[in-house]
Amino acid sequence: MSYLILSILIGGIALGFALLLYFDIIKKNVGSEKMKEISKNIEDGAMTFLFREYKFILIFVLVVAIIIAIAIHYKTAVAFVLGAFFSIMAGFCGMRVAVKANVRTTEAARKGIKEALTIAFSGGSVMGMAVVGFGIIGLAALMIIFNLDTEYITGFGLGASSIALFARVGGGIYTKAADVGADLVGKVEVGIPEDDPRNPAVIADNVGDNVGDVAGMGADLFESYVGSIISAITLGAFVNVSSGNETSIFPMIVAAFGILSSIIGVVIIRTIKGNNPQKILNTGTYIAGILMIVSTAIFSTVIFGSLKFFVPVLAGIIIGILIGKITEVYTSAEHKSVKEIARESQSGPGTNIISGLAVGMKSTVIPIILISIGILISYYVCGGNSDSSQGLYGIALSAVGMLATTGITVAVDAYGPVADNAGGIAEMASLPKEVREVTDKLDSVGNTTAAIGKGFAIGSAALTALALLASYAQVVQLKSIDLLDPLTLTGILVGAMIPYLFGALTMQAVGRAANKMVEEVRRQFKENKQILEGKSKPDYKRCIDISTEASLKEMIVPGILAVVIPVFIGMFFGKEALAGMITGALVSGVLNAIMMSNAGGAWDNAKKAIEGGIYGGSGSESHKAAVVGDTVGDPFKDTSGPSMNILIKLMTIVSVVFATLISSHGGILVDLFFK
Amino acid sequence: MSYLILSILIGGIALGFALLLYFDIIKKNVGSEKMKEISKNIEDGAMTFLFREYKFILIFVLVVAIIIAIAIHYKTAVAFVLGAFFSIMAGFCGMRVAVKANVRTTEAARKGIKEALTIAFSGGSVMGMAVVGFGIIGLAALMIIFNLDTEYITGFGLGASSIALFARVGGGIYTKAADVGADLVGKVEVGIPEDDPRNPAVIADNVGDNVGDVAGMGADLFESYVGSIISAITLGAFVNVSSGNETSIFPMIVAAFGILSSIIGVVIIRTIKGNNPQKILNTGTYIAGILMIVSTAIFSTVIFGSLKFFVPVLAGIIIGILIGKITEVYTSAEHKSVKEIARESQSGPGTNIISGLAVGMKSTVIPIILISIGILISYYVCGGNSDSSQGLYGIALSAVGMLATTGITVAVDAYGPVADNAGGIAEMASLPKEVREVTDKLDSVGNTTAAIGKGFAIGSAALTALALLASYAQVVQLKSIDLLDPLTLTGILVGAMIPYLFGALTMQAVGRAANKMVEEVRRQFKENKQILEGKSKPDYKRCIDISTEASLKEMIVPGILAVVIPVFIGMFFGKEALAGMITGALVSGVLNAIMMSNAGGAWDNAKKAIEGGIYGGSGSESHKAAVVGDTVGDPFKDTSGPSMNILIKLMTIVSVVFATLISSHGGILVDLFFK
Repeated sequence: MSYLILSILIGGIALGFALLLYFDIIKKNVGSEKMKEISKNIEDGAMTFLFREYKFILIFVLVVAIIIAIAIHYKTAVAFVLGAFFSIMAGFCGMRVAVKANVRTTEAARKGIKEALTIAFSGGSVMGMAVVGFGIIGLAALMIIFNLDTEYITGFGLGASSIALFARVGGGIYTKAADVGADLVGKVEVGIPEDDPRNPAVIADNVGDNVGDVAGMGADLFESYVGSIISAITLGAFVNVSSGNETSIFPMIVAAFGILSSIIGVVIIRTIKGNNPQKILNTGTYIAGILMIVSTAIFSTVIFGSLKFFVPVLAGIIIGILIGKITEVYTSAEHKSVKEIARESQSGPGTNIISGLAVGMKSTVIPIILISIGILISYYVCGGNSDSSQGLYGIALSAVGMLATTGITVAVDAYGPVADNAGGIAEMASLPKEVREVTDKLDSVGNTTAAIGKGFAIGSAALTALALLASYAQVVQLKSIDLLDPLTLTGILVGAMIPYLFGALTMQAVGRAANKMVEEVRRQFKENKQILEGKSKPDYKRCIDISTEASLKEMIVPGILAVVIPVFIGMFFGKEALAGMITGALVSGVLNAIMMSNAGGAWDNAKKAIEGGIYGGSGSESHKAAVVGDTVGDPFKDTSGPSMNILIKLMTIVSVVFATLISSHGGILVDLFFK
Repeated sequence: MSYLILSILIGGIALGFALLLYFDIIKKNVGSEKMKEISKNIEDGAMTFLFREYKFILIFVLVVAIIIAIAIHYKTAVAFVLGAFFSIMAGFCGMRVAVKANVRTTEAARKGIKEALTIAFSGGSVMGMAVVGFGIIGLAALMIIFNLDTEYITGFGLGASSIALFARVGGGIYTKAADVGADLVGKVEVGIPEDDPRNPAVIADNVGDNVGDVAGMGADLFESYVGSIISAITLGAFVNVSSGNETSIFPMIVAAFGILSSIIGVVIIRTIKGNNPQKILNTGTYIAGILMIVSTAIFSTVIFGSLKFFVPVLAGIIIGILIGKITEVYTSAEHKSVKEIARESQSGPGTNIISGLAVGMKSTVIPIILISIGILISYYVCGGNSDSSQGLYGIALSAVGMLATTGITVAVDAYGPVADNAGGIAEMASLPKEVREVTDKLDSVGNTTAAIGKGFAIGSAALTALALLASYAQVVQLKSIDLLDPLTLTGILVGAMIPYLFGALTMQAVGRAANKMVEEVRRQFKENKQILEGKSKPDYKRCIDISTEASLKEMIVPGILAVVIPVFIGMFFGKEALAGMITGALVSGVLNAIMMSNAGGAWDNAKKAIEGGIYGGSGSESHKAAVVGDTVGDPFKDTSGPSMNILIKLMTIVSVVFATLISSHGGILVDLFFK
């Protein structure tokens, strides 16, 4: 119990640290009136979206909470509401600060790159600290309230997952509708530059960066973070290696060490001097990782008398870093894949697309092998060979290890969109070229960190979902899940199909929403000629409304599918079919997520490489071909790909929450017809 | 034993019928000297490819046969060589006749549509009859030689699979390299029409239709055909429902009934009059299906005294037809998916691609559900609930049922490329417009039958691979394959990744080969200006050589991967990991195959719909966007997509053949490190 109180304290330290960073940011100079106004527009747009979303969420959470209270237990419902609320809080804090940090980053960019980096990164750090702070406090508090009974705590994960669905899928649709809409009419049709204040969708586009990349990514990793800890706690309860409940407490302590290490990492990044943002960010991240590893090793020796349960934690963090690096290799212009896509663009858009898809497909190989190695090491080192529950616990620990330093990972990741926004503000406020150069440099580093962050999010989602699958099997008391059972087998087939359906739905949603945006931007240009002359202000708000509405409307169907399908399969076809379905969805979801994210990132950078001057540069036929690739890549990497993470985690946690119900009452159709 | 001799007799009837059809075709008029010359060029090109491929295959077959003889048993090696040889024979006969039927179809098109249809369809029927004739004779002969011992017969399936790899993957690369090369330079760069004799790659393109669509599809279905029967025979040996070996004989008899029914169907199609080719083909196919169903029902009642084992056969054939229909819905211009892609082409190539991918992804839903329903019905109706070996036997029977009428399915499918070639010859020989109109009508029906055939090939590949997976589990005596075993789980992950790798490799192979073709066509146009003026003949042979060489070279890596990976996984990680791997590959392979084939077909028809006059018609911006989609769709639907069928069947049959070795000596690494 004392460890839990300690965890809450450390969570409190994270939130306190976030508050300090917040005060440090807001006292910075916001710059000119014009900048203030633009920033205000972005902030208002973001808040409009958030509050409209919250109304939606409120209804959703209430309905689901009532269903859970009736079908499962009121305690699970309480945990569910708390999980949703804490995820919202983390996202709200992160967004609130990000939209304040952006303009201040622009202003600081007048002074130098390190000054601007510090503010942008501090903005991202608030999101990071909020994610881990709220996450660990929520979990530890529930553990105390439920008196270490792990049964109901899964509700917390479901709450987090539900919000992630709204933030990631809805946010992904929002940001891409705005982005594509702004580009297609602004850049392509009327030929004004990116981030031009005459473009009616420009504010919506900047809001989208925050909505999709800050809040969406934050909610995604919040979900993975709490999901991995929950599965480790639940599986730990089944492990008997000592007299106490050390195995259930251990994951919390690893997370707590991770938070402290992340805070130190953030402080280091803020303090050290230099002009190479990438190097500064890497230094802080690596130091945080090493501190976490060392402290966990020591603690593991003290509490278990061996390093056995430390190994998966170490494996998790190493694999997380490696997957990030691999993502970089496949999506950065420095390496051969992106160069090849750029070269293929010379023969036209068709070959650009084929080449990008091939890169995306190929990029799945190494991450999958890494994850597999991680699973095998974690399982067998923890003694899975003689006691499978210890092995499964090991797999869950590797997910915890990968996610322990989420605080600094999210900080580095969320820094990107802040820098991106800062660049947009510099453009819109017509600041000197030097300012834009600084923000561009920060932005380009942000693209790399975003790619790495995406790889990390996928890897952690895969491990978290796997760990939750193991929890599910424990709860429904499946000692084995037999592939030769036709219910399991068809479950796998159907499960593997769902990410394809989900991918189709989300891509079409972006298409529809972008079309609406295109029409609106065209309408404004047509009805008010003064907009393009710069004499009249466009109606930014209307565009924000379109993105907001479309994103909320378009996520209803995929959202309901993700929640209902597992319960449907479980209730009608039984727990074996459901186990198969989760496995199928997990495997095919991870592969599609990697493929889509990396293909999208590679297309984006191939386009940028051509814009940098190769193969004819901007405006050439190669460039036009590369723009086509980027258009396809946008929903790939920012909507459908990341949505897969949410899908697999959400379906798994739904299964875990409804596990007892399905175990006792499931398989209605099977009992009727097949038995 | 008497049933086996009967099977051989019926196989003999099929081959005899094929011979009759052959004589009927060659006695038809070949038309003008010019037509004769063009047809000769295509025939020579096809034979050049075949003999070059045979040299390659000879070495491959010898090496593998030796390995099998040493590692497994010399009898398996004999079966392997026989399977390879029979598959080659079937493909050779089919190609030989197809390249003779094409020009005669062109000439018959002068007289009327029914006359042309009869010849084109007879050409396809030779392939169909050769596939089933050689298939059943080979299997029945081996059963007699090995005295009903089913252990070695799997080698026959491996032989068939190996040839399918060469024919389908190599053929797919061949045909698309020629097609893309001919189009990019001919149609796009210099603006000459399709099938223009001035295009140096035009003969290679026509050869490609035969190589990819006749020989490739034939080998693919030959593999499924024998694979499904082999798995049913093997699983039948484990079933004890009566005193004799009826369960092992039953699949052979179903296949024999299917052959007789197919022959009757072919005769009907040749006999009935009318001007609607689609209707005529459908009538024959349906009658064949009904005859097969009725005769199987009667026989099942006689031999087993119940309809129990008839139900999966019925389910198989119905599901096969339904999957074909669904494929048509997603890929035909009559339905909304293709219309939507055409509409989205108005906003450019980017939205065309997104929309096509979304259609492909969505089109996976219903086929997967159908296959799942088929599995569940087959398993439980056959009593899988009380005796799992009967249930697994039921699944294998559904594959046999789906494939029993392969004779007529292949005939209808292979008719398309013959008609396509006939149109090309009409164009190249400058025949009157009316002739081309007739061949175009036949060709457009051929596109629909090809789409249906592709759906059928995927569905049957999935069921066959599943049945073989069950055989594998029986042979290695896995009573269950536990998903919670980390070796199985990582096996699934790695297995599911392989189709992505395979897809990337085959798409890049097409890209490289097409680039070589583009360069060659450009070179010829540049070095000899008279070619474009029509005064000098281009060097067709050089283009044929390029496609031939590229296709054989580019398939080495994917081919080796498909054969080596299962053995590698089995030997180093054990039989459980291998079982997981096959499952993962199967699931993700089927999904990618459906997605790629249907997206490709839908893009193709969206382009044709625009060429038909909607959204600006040929030459408009929408059309250009749709051409991009078609370029991406070409390797999707004709190379990578169909290659997935081969991949999953080949990896599964390799596992079955090496099952005993893996069972006794496999899992070296696991024993070393994890136990």
